Amino acid sequence: MRKIQFKGYGVELPKNTVYFKEQTRYRISGDEKQISLAVSACQKALKNTNITIDDIDCIVSASAVGIQPIPCMAALIHEKIAKGTSIPALDINTTCTSFITALDTMSYLLDSGRYKRILIVSCDVASRALNPKQKESFQLFSDGAVAFIIEKTDEEIGVIDATQKTWSEGAHSTEIRGGLSNFHPENYSESTKEEFMFDMCGKTILALSMKKIPKMMKEFLENNNMKISDIDMVIPHQASVAMPLIMEKLGVPEGKYIDEVKEFGNMVSASVPMTLAHGLEKQKIKNGDIILLIGTAAGLTTNIMLIKI
Amino acid sequence: MRKIQFKGYGVELPKNTVYFKEQTRYRISGDEKQISLAVSACQKALKNTNITIDDIDCIVSASAVGIQPIPCMAALIHEKIAKGTSIPALDINTTCTSFITALDTMSYLLDSGRYKRILIVSCDVASRALNPKQKESFQLFSDGAVAFIIEKTDEEIGVIDATQKTWSEGAHSTEIRGGLSNFHPENYSESTKEEFMFDMCGKTILALSMKKIPKMMKEFLENNNMKISDIDMVIPHQASVAMPLIMEKLGVPEGKYIDEVKEFGNMVSASVPMTLAHGLEKQKIKNGDIILLIGTAAGLTTNIMLIKI
Repeated sequence: MRKIQFKGYGVELPKNTVYFKEQTRYRISGDEKQISLAVSACQKALKNTNITIDDIDCIVSASAVGIQPIPCMAALIHEKIAKGTSIPALDINTTCTSFITALDTMSYLLDSGRYKRILIVSCDVASRALNPKQKESFQLFSDGAVAFIIEKTDEEIGVIDATQKTWSEGAHSTEIRGGLSNFHPENYSESTKEEFMFDMCGKTILALSMKKIPKMMKEFLENNNMKISDIDMVIPHQASVAMPLIMEKLGVPEGKYIDEVKEFGNMVSASVPMTLAHGLEKQKIKNGDIILLIGTAAGLTTNIMLIKI
Repeated sequence: MRKIQFKGYGVELPKNTVYFKEQTRYRISGDEKQISLAVSACQKALKNTNITIDDIDCIVSASAVGIQPIPCMAALIHEKIAKGTSIPALDINTTCTSFITALDTMSYLLDSGRYKRILIVSCDVASRALNPKQKESFQLFSDGAVAFIIEKTDEEIGVIDATQKTWSEGAHSTEIRGGLSNFHPENYSESTKEEFMFDMCGKTILALSMKKIPKMMKEFLENNNMKISDIDMVIPHQASVAMPLIMEKLGVPEGKYIDEVKEFGNMVSASVPMTLAHGLEKQKIKNGDIILLIGTAAGLTTNIMLIKI
């Protein structure tokens, strides 16, 4: 077990909500930007943990789409919350599951003593790139930011195990193709503008997920000598309204997973930490519980992580 | 010590060279793209190591500017070299020092046994975003890709220690502002086009580096009870033609560092692994040597790493 604990978190949502039938979505407006959401989530996390930035040893941005191509997003967040310090800042990215990947990866550095306390922030503003012609994604995504402060501990809690798999048959099932080196902004025009927008084929992703993830989950639990019944709560990425279908296929009964797609939508990288924060806040999960984080990401990547909290 | 070893590497340069007085620069042309350079470097690394992709446990893309905003770059490389496998793919980014950050971070996962053998690939094509009006950066950067295969070992070699610091006073000294959420490609026009190009203030970076790095280096070596004379070779990021100035300030004598700025320019994330690969190839470094990787990155971030190879 990599002995770490969640010390606190901060959640920031845009002020503006839009509705698609009974589905609520959050979208930035006015002065709100990706950087302001991310910074606010970090500041709330520090405040809730009752520490200052000087108590943090490393800042990790675990988001899908950044603020700008250079510098990395963590450096831009550093400027707003840690200017004048020398705290290292880095980005870790597996799109929608970036938070799990960052938590998984950095848990080794915490456990080994390299860092004592780190801040991981996930923030995406999908609304900047949604295509009104693609109804499914246009009505699914929200903007949001969540920061967690994670600390090395001596208690018998932390990461029990984690796994990631990438199946690149799905590499083009979720894309934003334009904006960086392959399709540079100089190519932007009325006829190419959709290349710079979200392009998601939900059906293809669902089919690939259904084919691959049940086997991955089965093997992962077997490797840890665990059954679904040993898990207190599953914290899934809020990928789509099809979540109950996937959970049923994985053998996770209703009531053992948190589904907030209706209330919050898919917040890309911010969904997993948001669902985790809400679980803690609403006491759906509590100290001593064994939880399972699970998510799919563009790639197609899937992360699963077992944590005793 | 985190016991790892370099098993092999692959280097890929664009066919086309341009010259600025005696300085040689490599720039993609024709069919060459960021993905083709990255893939070719990975394939050469596998071939040189005499292994296949099935022997790799994790693919890490450690580059500054990606191919496209979604999915992450490692997933797109996965599609070309690992399709049909389930090898996990992730991006780690601290712009120019991404390779050192990825090597540093992943060394914990190798040392702990999470992965046995990983592939780290760094590839940038700065030429896609250079501003002809900024002579310094326009004449400095090259495109290139380098992949390293790194393996857990039982021998007494590997990462002795590593450190990273970020001073965000320098967050805007090296930038590409446009292309993602903050300044979306929809804003591209003749009057805004420079926002989508490299914007670098070499003087500011040099001044901040000169102020901060000597102290960081001194503390790092002291923490490891080492002196410059204990190091066999310094492998610096090929940041600029001012490298000898920085090395002198750090107390590294001529002949104890590899300066290839004239021959290859600054290849962003690919510079550190390129210099390391050339050092191994030309036998400037050999088994048993203690080497020091050092680089500055947009942020301003600096990474230093001591390795026994």
